[in-house]
Amino acid sequence: MLEGIFAPIPTPFSEQGEIDYSRLEENLHKWAGTMLSGIVVLGSNGEFVYLSEREKVELVAFCRRNFPGDRAVVAGTGCETTRATVELTARSAESGCEAALVLTPHYFKGAMKPDVLKRFFFDVADAAEIPIMLYNMPGNTGLNMSSSLVTELSEHPNIVGIKDSGGNIVQISEIIANTPDDFSVFAGSGSFLLPALVMGAAGGTLAVANIMADQCAAVQSSLAAGDLETAVARQRNILAPNAAVTGGFGIPGLKAAMDMLGYFGGPPRKPLLPLPEEDKARLRDVLIAAGLLPSA
Amino acid sequence: MLEGIFAPIPTPFSEQGEIDYSRLEENLHKWAGTMLSGIVVLGSNGEFVYLSEREKVELVAFCRRNFPGDRAVVAGTGCETTRATVELTARSAESGCEAALVLTPHYFKGAMKPDVLKRFFFDVADAAEIPIMLYNMPGNTGLNMSSSLVTELSEHPNIVGIKDSGGNIVQISEIIANTPDDFSVFAGSGSFLLPALVMGAAGGTLAVANIMADQCAAVQSSLAAGDLETAVARQRNILAPNAAVTGGFGIPGLKAAMDMLGYFGGPPRKPLLPLPEEDKARLRDVLIAAGLLPSA
Amino acid sequence: MLEGIFAPIPTPFSEQGEIDYSRLEENLHKWAGTMLSGIVVLGSNGEFVYLSEREKVELVAFCRRNFPGDRAVVAGTGCETTRATVELTARSAESGCEAALVLTPHYFKGAMKPDVLKRFFFDVADAAEIPIMLYNMPGNTGLNMSSSLVTELSEHPNIVGIKDSGGNIVQISEIIANTPDDFSVFAGSGSFLLPALVMGAAGGTLAVANIMADQCAAVQSSLAAGDLETAVARQRNILAPNAAVTGGFGIPGLKAAMDMLGYFGGPPRKPLLPLPEEDKARLRDVLIAAGLLPSA
Amino acid sequence: MLEGIFAPIPTPFSEQGEIDYSRLEENLHKWAGTMLSGIVVLGSNGEFVYLSEREKVELVAFCRRNFPGDRAVVAGTGCETTRATVELTARSAESGCEAALVLTPHYFKGAMKPDVLKRFFFDVADAAEIPIMLYNMPGNTGLNMSSSLVTELSEHPNIVGIKDSGGNIVQISEIIANTPDDFSVFAGSGSFLLPALVMGAAGGTLAVANIMADQCAAVQSSLAAGDLETAVARQRNILAPNAAVTGGFGIPGLKAAMDMLGYFGGPPRKPLLPLPEEDKARLRDVLIAAGLLPSA
Repeated sequence: MLEGIFAPIPTPFSEQGEIDYSRLEENLHKWAGTMLSGIVVLGSNGEFVYLSEREKVELVAFCRRNFPGDRAVVAGTGCETTRATVELTARSAESGCEAALVLTPHYFKGAMKPDVLKRFFFDVADAAEIPIMLYNMPGNTGLNMSSSLVTELSEHPNIVGIKDSGGNIVQISEIIANTPDDFSVFAGSGSFLLPALVMGAAGGTLAVANIMADQCAAVQSSLAAGDLETAVARQRNILAPNAAVTGGFGIPGLKAAMDMLGYFGGPPRKPLLPLPEEDKARLRDVLIAAGLLPSA
Repeated sequence: MLEGIFAPIPTPFSEQGEIDYSRLEENLHKWAGTMLSGIVVLGSNGEFVYLSEREKVELVAFCRRNFPGDRAVVAGTGCETTRATVELTARSAESGCEAALVLTPHYFKGAMKPDVLKRFFFDVADAAEIPIMLYNMPGNTGLNMSSSLVTELSEHPNIVGIKDSGGNIVQISEIIANTPDDFSVFAGSGSFLLPALVMGAAGGTLAVANIMADQCAAVQSSLAAGDLETAVARQRNILAPNAAVTGGFGIPGLKAAMDMLGYFGGPPRKPLLPLPEEDKARLRDVLIAAGLLPSA
Repeated sequence: MLEGIFAPIPTPFSEQGEIDYSRLEENLHKWAGTMLSGIVVLGSNGEFVYLSEREKVELVAFCRRNFPGDRAVVAGTGCETTRATVELTARSAESGCEAALVLTPHYFKGAMKPDVLKRFFFDVADAAEIPIMLYNMPGNTGLNMSSSLVTELSEHPNIVGIKDSGGNIVQISEIIANTPDDFSVFAGSGSFLLPALVMGAAGGTLAVANIMADQCAAVQSSLAAGDLETAVARQRNILAPNAAVTGGFGIPGLKAAMDMLGYFGGPPRKPLLPLPEEDKARLRDVLIAAGLLPSA
Repeated sequence: MLEGIFAPIPTPFSEQGEIDYSRLEENLHKWAGTMLSGIVVLGSNGEFVYLSEREKVELVAFCRRNFPGDRAVVAGTGCETTRATVELTARSAESGCEAALVLTPHYFKGAMKPDVLKRFFFDVADAAEIPIMLYNMPGNTGLNMSSSLVTELSEHPNIVGIKDSGGNIVQISEIIANTPDDFSVFAGSGSFLLPALVMGAAGGTLAVANIMADQCAAVQSSLAAGDLETAVARQRNILAPNAAVTGGFGIPGLKAAMDMLGYFGGPPRKPLLPLPEEDKARLRDVLIAAGLLPSA
């Protein structure tokens, strides 16, 4: 059963826009020194929609090969078609990934009715040799999986959990209440990690975990140890940095924060543009206020 | 400082559509026997938008007069104009209400910019002789008050709290983190009561508290006593009945549930129609599953 | 059958916030000198949600009394309840209004299902002694009446038309195609007047008609005369002023434009605030560019 | 300058899910016998998001090779990254396509600010050896290009037009009014073809043109000939079939309609599923009512 804190890692690019594997290797080494339970490669923060078919396969294999074997590497394998999702999932399984995180197809929003999505996820789960984790990301897809659909999907033996990034704590509560105990519900953003954990979530897959892995892990361990007061205090401290590296400044912000904090962030791929200097200054202030950087 | 569980009480009507004060008196007497900290009259569940100017004033006075003096009666006094809100707040203060709950004006959504809302709430709070509680209800108004606006508003000495019905736990967490300790944040729906309380909310103003007052209060008291497990179990038990009497079946559902559980619900005012028989059967099943009614 | 261009007139207020009837009388006299087929009193631009029950009745009567008998006065009588709508419609009929424009009740959005709205409009139309015109205003209500619902409603003998302010030209086309020929469809904004007229609309009820009545009427008369080129040119000239006095600067902008163009606009009621000086300058530029004001 | 009616052609698949080029050749031959000015390959109706990188390049080349040289073939080349869009545009130019239709990148909606989109489209237009046409498709992308952004983009010498599928006739009117006369605005759906043409659009790129090419062309030719009455009648006749093969039944509906009307439609790629039998019956009724099929 998947649990704990996962970082959906960014994909580092050179100035020429190619994947920079040596920088990635350094980042992986640093994350290996944290309390992370694992990483997600090819998540939204990995700019997976910006990678070619070949790059995706290579990147997954590289990450699995260069991250400690006792930590999980989950591959984001959701594509718009069933066939492409099945194929990328198979390649990820070959690379040794522990699970696949499968986003809802979404371009044809109006057509993605519950029965179509059910058929899609069942087809993918039937074909996969590794467990499937659902990925609900309405902010990017414009599509939400209802708690009743997730409950139905949880009946498939090879669908083992969900990363829900929508932030609807009621929906998350309902999913936890209505799915089997070994169905792993992951908070999809650090901003609601503790509320989700209190209601029974198994962990979180959090952009902010790329830069605050141990603080995120401490929310979970404090709660597990019965120290709710500390858990709340740590959760509150995550709020502002989390907002900055997600909705606030997006992937350019996450990468800029990594550059400030000893990781390699580097430029995003175009059309995304590097964070402007004035936003970097504001981001720095947020990181200082959260105690991640010394004040100037 | 306001805290605890409040019921936003429905307004009982006769078959002819007039306010039925004797039935209301009976309901008030029953709620007085629960763990409720207080009631809200003229909230959304009170069909306040369906009452005439005169009815509103009379209803508030009647409720304050007929509810125990050691429990709070909060009046929903938000109107579309500043002048009408000030007037209804003044009349509610005269009736002895402990506070006024003021909804955002919202018909001209595009014009309700933060500075317009700030001026509105400050004008109302300046004029009021009782404390003002903000009321954020995006589901009905189509308008959300951001955490940064609420933080600004919390600086007014006579604005003492907020009922946030939006259910965005991140926004609620930010409001709690960024406002003074004595600013009371209330969950606006039972579906996210515990997550809000964990993050520091002072209580809840919950439709479902009309029919599950003591169970809602037990969520809060269990948490306060350090028994998180019990709090979670009780919170989960609230989910389905809460969904049924809010988004699911709406006010007709809440009134039908009250009729089933020993209160007087009665018909809503038109255009709302009484709950159809087939929905009553489904509602009854939900109440049975939650242990509120014996199984047939 | 209702047709032509109608102005949904603003309600003039004194600096103290009271209805200024003498200023209103002057405005009515000026509008009587234009090509307007009639006026709508208590429309959105009339700040109808900002008026007391008593003010509404008086205002309607005053307008009917002070506008030429050969032009129509339509009263906006939509309230949240059936009973209040029926009552205000009856009072408007007594005052001699030619028709009532009835907005969808909308506070309880989730409950306003097609069958609830159908019952509401049929109840109102059954009780009314004057014809009922539907009012679809999703931008303010958050609720849209589908073309299929409108088609059903058009079967009632006393429901004679619709003002559709949503601007969805496909929906408007479908309504015109599927309702009887004598069902009057009115464009609810000057921005899509010509497209609606081309598809068969009977006219328009347009905020911008308060300040450009004859230009709006010329769009319709040019089209009727077979001069499409002139109609298009005039329609284009309406676009920018229309945007300025609706979505752009709202009612404060419409009132400011009236002040600039020889009508009395005056202040809106609070919480709406008068147009700031810098926005007045931008508004003036728009009116100059449209040829409504001489360049400085 | 691009003008007239274009069909965004579906991609035919075999039962095994591979592109069926022989069926495609037959369809192309049939469309060549209509009044279509050209076709769009790799549009939304072409299930472009369901094709591999290699398939896209091959499909474009095949279509250009097998469609008459005096009709335009426009390639949909929008990808999430600048680099992939530039590359696919270059390959499409090599194949002889007359223009490229470039969709807004959209997965990271929150980051697609006007300046980011401007940089993206300028980069693509700078690199392209064929003209660029913008593609605004908010229903699928969740992102709208405002008329002011489009106006800015129209200043680039190699950005020659826009297909706007949003259906906002006001936005379309503003774009036409504010861009150069040789900037081609295309209606993106048959449902608002005539209103757009009246306001000055150069043509339409319409799913329904796959099955009603000549009827769509007749809307434009009737208008051009000054016969507005006929144009309106034909436009009305398009409404219901258009609704059925777009929002109503989607791509499975369009393909089913093609099968009924002598083209090859065939199955969509999964996760899309073929139209269920009961929906086929309803679709057939719509086609009968529009005179496209004989009544049974």
